[in-house]
Amino acid sequence: MSRPLDDLPTPALLVDVPRLEANLARMAERCRTLGVSLRPHVKTHKCVEIAERQRALGPPAGTAGLTVSTLEEARAFADHGFHDLTWAFPVIPGRLPEAVAIAERATLRLVVDSPEAVAAVEATGHPFHVWLEVDPGYGRSGVDPEGEHAVELARALAGSERLVFDGLLSHSGQAYGARSPEEAARAAEEERSAMVGLARRLEAAGVPVPAVSVGSTPGMAAARSLAGATEARPGNYAYYDLTQVAIGSCAVRDCALTVLATVVSCQPGARHSVVDAGALALSKDPGPAWLEPPSFGALYADHEAGALRPDAHLVSLSQEHGVVGAPLPVGSKIRILPNHSCLAAACFDRVWAVSGDRVEGAWRVHRGR
Amino acid sequence: MSRPLDDLPTPALLVDVPRLEANLARMAERCRTLGVSLRPHVKTHKCVEIAERQRALGPPAGTAGLTVSTLEEARAFADHGFHDLTWAFPVIPGRLPEAVAIAERATLRLVVDSPEAVAAVEATGHPFHVWLEVDPGYGRSGVDPEGEHAVELARALAGSERLVFDGLLSHSGQAYGARSPEEAARAAEEERSAMVGLARRLEAAGVPVPAVSVGSTPGMAAARSLAGATEARPGNYAYYDLTQVAIGSCAVRDCALTVLATVVSCQPGARHSVVDAGALALSKDPGPAWLEPPSFGALYADHEAGALRPDAHLVSLSQEHGVVGAPLPVGSKIRILPNHSCLAAACFDRVWAVSGDRVEGAWRVHRGR
Repeated sequence: MSRPLDDLPTPALLVDVPRLEANLARMAERCRTLGVSLRPHVKTHKCVEIAERQRALGPPAGTAGLTVSTLEEARAFADHGFHDLTWAFPVIPGRLPEAVAIAERATLRLVVDSPEAVAAVEATGHPFHVWLEVDPGYGRSGVDPEGEHAVELARALAGSERLVFDGLLSHSGQAYGARSPEEAARAAEEERSAMVGLARRLEAAGVPVPAVSVGSTPGMAAARSLAGATEARPGNYAYYDLTQVAIGSCAVRDCALTVLATVVSCQPGARHSVVDAGALALSKDPGPAWLEPPSFGALYADHEAGALRPDAHLVSLSQEHGVVGAPLPVGSKIRILPNHSCLAAACFDRVWAVSGDRVEGAWRVHRGR
Repeated sequence: MSRPLDDLPTPALLVDVPRLEANLARMAERCRTLGVSLRPHVKTHKCVEIAERQRALGPPAGTAGLTVSTLEEARAFADHGFHDLTWAFPVIPGRLPEAVAIAERATLRLVVDSPEAVAAVEATGHPFHVWLEVDPGYGRSGVDPEGEHAVELARALAGSERLVFDGLLSHSGQAYGARSPEEAARAAEEERSAMVGLARRLEAAGVPVPAVSVGSTPGMAAARSLAGATEARPGNYAYYDLTQVAIGSCAVRDCALTVLATVVSCQPGARHSVVDAGALALSKDPGPAWLEPPSFGALYADHEAGALRPDAHLVSLSQEHGVVGAPLPVGSKIRILPNHSCLAAACFDRVWAVSGDRVEGAWRVHRGR
């Protein structure tokens, strides 16, 4: 059944299964050590076969359920036997009828950070589980953990006759600005202390907080303590990518996701070549602003991929063309470590499951929208 | 059958059909005026319903066939009755067996720019039509129009016993660096003169050049003459986008593609809000480096969308979150003009066909890969 890597049509999305499984086991172990359960974010891979491996590790090794970013993901995973899902995105009021339909066959936990959202969820009449999203210093969504608004919303949720208040939820996106594990650890501690501080304040105000859910891959890779948190929701750790290498969350040899591409053009005397992996294979994510050298993806030095080529990387992307800043032979193949594996994976309908230089199968990426 | 725009689940990809049809007619007319046939690039929309409208306009108004960027597009359009396709990408040697299978039911024209590619196409045994790709000053792929390599490859194609030499093909991607129609016109003229110069040199060397295919949307919008060219292959003009507005290829009121999004988070006192259109609805294309203000997408001032809001645009994107640099009411809807419509359209499986504030249908986006 297995076939050689070189037989695949390019561009092809590859997951190195031994690395994937090591990453999953390492994060499950890390959560056990830190004393939190693990609810992996499947937006990274959107892949049932990977979620099954994540589930097989826990609990108590960790997996309490899954985290999804869209209702399309929620439907796909509910269809495949995953019945405890947190939709970690501020609820979209117009899509609550779809959420109700999913919640009739799975526990779908919603996230809110506004009175408008609380009212819209109440109005469905469904006894949803609901998390209150807290901004742990990232500045995107979520209530201010030091404000009165947080207390009012938590009180409304905890006091609801219909809704089930799950607790406080945050995403330490600021950890993606870290340039070292030490900085990522500070971001994780900033998140933890903000969440625990709010939980204490709520409990002092008579609002019990059943759970505290935190997380980001850089934060989880670096956190020294999660005391007071009960659950973590990293996603990227399944694959990792060049951004995580730059932050120091992992080594190149941990990265499980690559794009296999073919060199399709290289002119005599040119200092660049063109490959068949462009913006629709890698995404245009530029990685961290301080990525050195700036690139849209790095090249593995060899198919075993323990190291990156120092002399060649993706210097620009158009829709289907990727430009590599070095001449390479037409017809040769390269493996590209993307800047952002979540976005690269969402460019494809399937990911090839690879072990060494053999392809063992193809897994569907549930990217429909 | 039609329903109100506000009923759509967000994020939603919308095409304004009257604008689309005006754009298609205008480009067909422009090609007639410039004396070239039109082979629209369908990588922009990947949509059979739009290609059918493009075909209905020509010939002689213009449409000789279609241009595709991938074999997946070639298969999808061949499945829907489009039997003259140029795969405008340097051939991927390992995928030639798939190209042969498509060529057995449609005319599939290939593009080469290297002796390796010529040999690989020859080796299939299929009597492919083949274009020689020329670099008209863009610096991506294609032979140097002033070099000897171009003559050698053209001679090899024209002299092939098996292959049919279609002529010279180029893409004036440098027109995307233009900051005005005048600069785009200069890029188009640079392309035209490079192509015509090479065609003359080849004919003087005894290599007949059957056709000269050029094009980019900014170049076609601005070109003053295409004398010597026979065909143009713009794609983006069907939709246009913020990049084309910035170049001056079109006005805001010509842009046919938008993303409808819902405001899902806005904290008291915050100067930003969060919408449900992130990198997987808009792509992370930053637009031109000189885009002012820098943004990942502009907001329409109203649903009729003749103007952009000066006070609010997309300032950052994560996977599913878009951050708008202004507070907006939770639950309200916005229409976003993306920086790059080709990449935004490829984020969705379907585009809603809209007329005014009514939704008339849903068209499939053949983005499979």
